[in-house]
Amino acid sequence: MSQPSYDVVAIGNAIVDVLSQADDGFIAQEGMAKGSMQLMFSPAEADALYAKMGPGTEASGGSAANTVAAIAALGGRTAFVGQVADDQLGEVFAHDIRAAGVSFATPARPGEPTTARCLIFVTPDGQRTMNTFLGASQFLPEAALDRALIADAAILYLEGYLWDPEEPRAAMRAAIEVARKAGRKVAFTLSDTFCISRHGDDFRKLIADGLIDILFANEAELVALAEVDDFDAGVAKMAGQVPLLVVTRGQAGATAVQAGRTVSVGAEPVEQVVDTTGAGDLFAAGFLRGQAQGWGLEKSLKLGAVCAAEIISHYGARPQVDMQALVAAKLG
Amino acid sequence: MSQPSYDVVAIGNAIVDVLSQADDGFIAQEGMAKGSMQLMFSPAEADALYAKMGPGTEASGGSAANTVAAIAALGGRTAFVGQVADDQLGEVFAHDIRAAGVSFATPARPGEPTTARCLIFVTPDGQRTMNTFLGASQFLPEAALDRALIADAAILYLEGYLWDPEEPRAAMRAAIEVARKAGRKVAFTLSDTFCISRHGDDFRKLIADGLIDILFANEAELVALAEVDDFDAGVAKMAGQVPLLVVTRGQAGATAVQAGRTVSVGAEPVEQVVDTTGAGDLFAAGFLRGQAQGWGLEKSLKLGAVCAAEIISHYGARPQVDMQALVAAKLG
Repeated sequence: MSQPSYDVVAIGNAIVDVLSQADDGFIAQEGMAKGSMQLMFSPAEADALYAKMGPGTEASGGSAANTVAAIAALGGRTAFVGQVADDQLGEVFAHDIRAAGVSFATPARPGEPTTARCLIFVTPDGQRTMNTFLGASQFLPEAALDRALIADAAILYLEGYLWDPEEPRAAMRAAIEVARKAGRKVAFTLSDTFCISRHGDDFRKLIADGLIDILFANEAELVALAEVDDFDAGVAKMAGQVPLLVVTRGQAGATAVQAGRTVSVGAEPVEQVVDTTGAGDLFAAGFLRGQAQGWGLEKSLKLGAVCAAEIISHYGARPQVDMQALVAAKLG
Repeated sequence: MSQPSYDVVAIGNAIVDVLSQADDGFIAQEGMAKGSMQLMFSPAEADALYAKMGPGTEASGGSAANTVAAIAALGGRTAFVGQVADDQLGEVFAHDIRAAGVSFATPARPGEPTTARCLIFVTPDGQRTMNTFLGASQFLPEAALDRALIADAAILYLEGYLWDPEEPRAAMRAAIEVARKAGRKVAFTLSDTFCISRHGDDFRKLIADGLIDILFANEAELVALAEVDDFDAGVAKMAGQVPLLVVTRGQAGATAVQAGRTVSVGAEPVEQVVDTTGAGDLFAAGFLRGQAQGWGLEKSLKLGAVCAAEIISHYGARPQVDMQALVAAKLG
C-alpha cells in the first residue's frame, strides 16, 4: 500500500446554492420543514419556488463538495467527483471547486437536466431551509469514477444525500469497493434524516458489513439510524459498530467515539449566527483535516468546531477567510 | 402632464457580478487599474481571467440596475430596461431585479453572446476592481424601448457605461427624447473616467443642449468632464450647466449644487469597508429617492450617504438589510 496522493476524495452532489433571506411565515406558508432539506423533482417545481424567492446570491455548494473545498483551504490535498451539466451553473461549480484547490475532473453532462440548484431560505435566526433540484447531479454514472483516483486517497468521503438516486448509488458502492481493496478508509455522512427514512436499511447494512470506518451524523440522524429515543442510547448502540463515530450537536458541541473512548468538545463561540448552511460540512472538514495530520480526537473535534463557527458567521457554505491563519490563531 | 406611475425608470447594463477576493499583487500582475472598470471584449478573454480568479459568489449587478433595485427597496416605484441573453445568468438577473420589486420586461436575447458578467476583485482594503464582459448587454436595441414606460416615469436615469456600445446609445438618445417630450426629468451618471475619455464630447453636448437635468459624478469624473484640474474648478464650471449637479467624494462625503446653492454632507461612518462595489449606485438611489419624496438637497444627500454606507459594509451591490427600517433609524 503506497502513500496516497490525496488526503480525501469525496463523491457528492455538485450543486450551486441560491441563498436568500426569508421569514418564518414564508417557510410555514410553503410547507417547508425549517432547518431541513427537501427535494424538488422537476424543473417546473424549482422554477415556481424560485419565482417566489427574494433577490438571491449564488455560491457553489453541495455537502461533500463544501467539505473537500474547506479541507483544501486548510492545506489538505483533496479531489471531488460529482456531476454537473454543460451549462453556466456547471461552469460556476467547476470553477469554484478548482479555484478552491480541489482536483475536479468529472466531465460535464450535455443536455437536460441542468446543473443542480439548491434554493436556500435563511431565516432571521440564521437557520437554513433547503430545497434542492438535483438535476444533472443525480446522473453521476459509475463510468465517471476514476478508480485510480479513489485508490490514491487516504479517505473516501461519501454523502448520504447522493444515496438517493440510483446511478450515483451504484458509483458509490463501486468506489467503496475500490477504496477498501486499496486499503483506504471510508467515511460516510448521513446528511439528513430523510436520507435515513429512505435508505436507513442500506446504511445499517453498510455498517454491519464493516464498510464504513468513520461515520458522521448529527444528533437527529444518529437517533434515526440507531432507531432509539435519545442521543446517549444512539451513541451506545452505534459506537461499537463503526471504528470511529462523530456526532455533531449544534450549540451543544460534538462528540467522537473510538475504541471505547468518548471525547466531547463544546461549540466554538460565534458573535452572530448569520447562516447555518454548511455547518456540518465544515465540521467534517476540520475533523478530517485534523485526523489527516495525525491529531488526536479532541484536537480534531476542536478544529471541526472552529471551521463550523467560521462558516455560520456569514452567508454561504465555502470559507471566506484565510482558514490556515484562522486555525493558527485558534489552535496554535 | 399626468402623474407618472414610476419614480424612476433606468436604462443600463444587465450584468451578473462575480465577486472574489484578491490581493494587490494580483491586481498589479494582471495590469488592472485598481478601483476602476475595464472592458473585456471577448468571451475567451473573460474565460481566461475567470480561470485565474479565486472561488466566487454571483450576485446581480449593473450600475443603474443596482440604483433602481435600491430605490425599490426604499419604497420607490421603479422600472428597468436592459438586455440579458436567454441563459441561466440572464434568468438570475431577471429574477433578482423583479424580486427586488423593479418592473423589468425587456425580452431576453436568444443565442450568443451570453448575459454580461463582471469579474470583480475585492482587495483587503475593500476596494473593487471590475472587469466586464458586456455580452448581450451591448445589444439592447432601440426597438426594445417601451416608450409609454419611459413617458410614465418622473425621472429617466441613464448610465454612462452604456453609452459605449452603439445600439444602446441610440436607444438612450431615443429615450431622452421621449422623456423630455413627456415633460419628465433626465438624470445621467458618468459612471467612470474611461467613459468620459471615450465619449466626453457626447456628454458635454448633451449637457450643452439642455438634455440633462440631474448629473451624477464622482470627483475624478467631474474633473475629467469639466477638463479642469480640481474639484472646486469642476463644480464652478459644471454647476451652471446642469440644473442639479451631484458629486460624490468617497470618504469626503458628497456635494449637490442647484440654482447656485451648494450643499455638502459628510460620509456616513462605516464599521468596516468590506467591498465598495455599488457605492456610487446606492448613493444615487438614496439621493433620487429623497428627491422623489420632495426632500431638500441636504436630506437627499444624507439618504444617499446612508445607502452607500450600507452597501460597502458587505459583499455585493444590492441591499442586504431592510432599507426602510435603516432609513427610519438613521433619518427618522
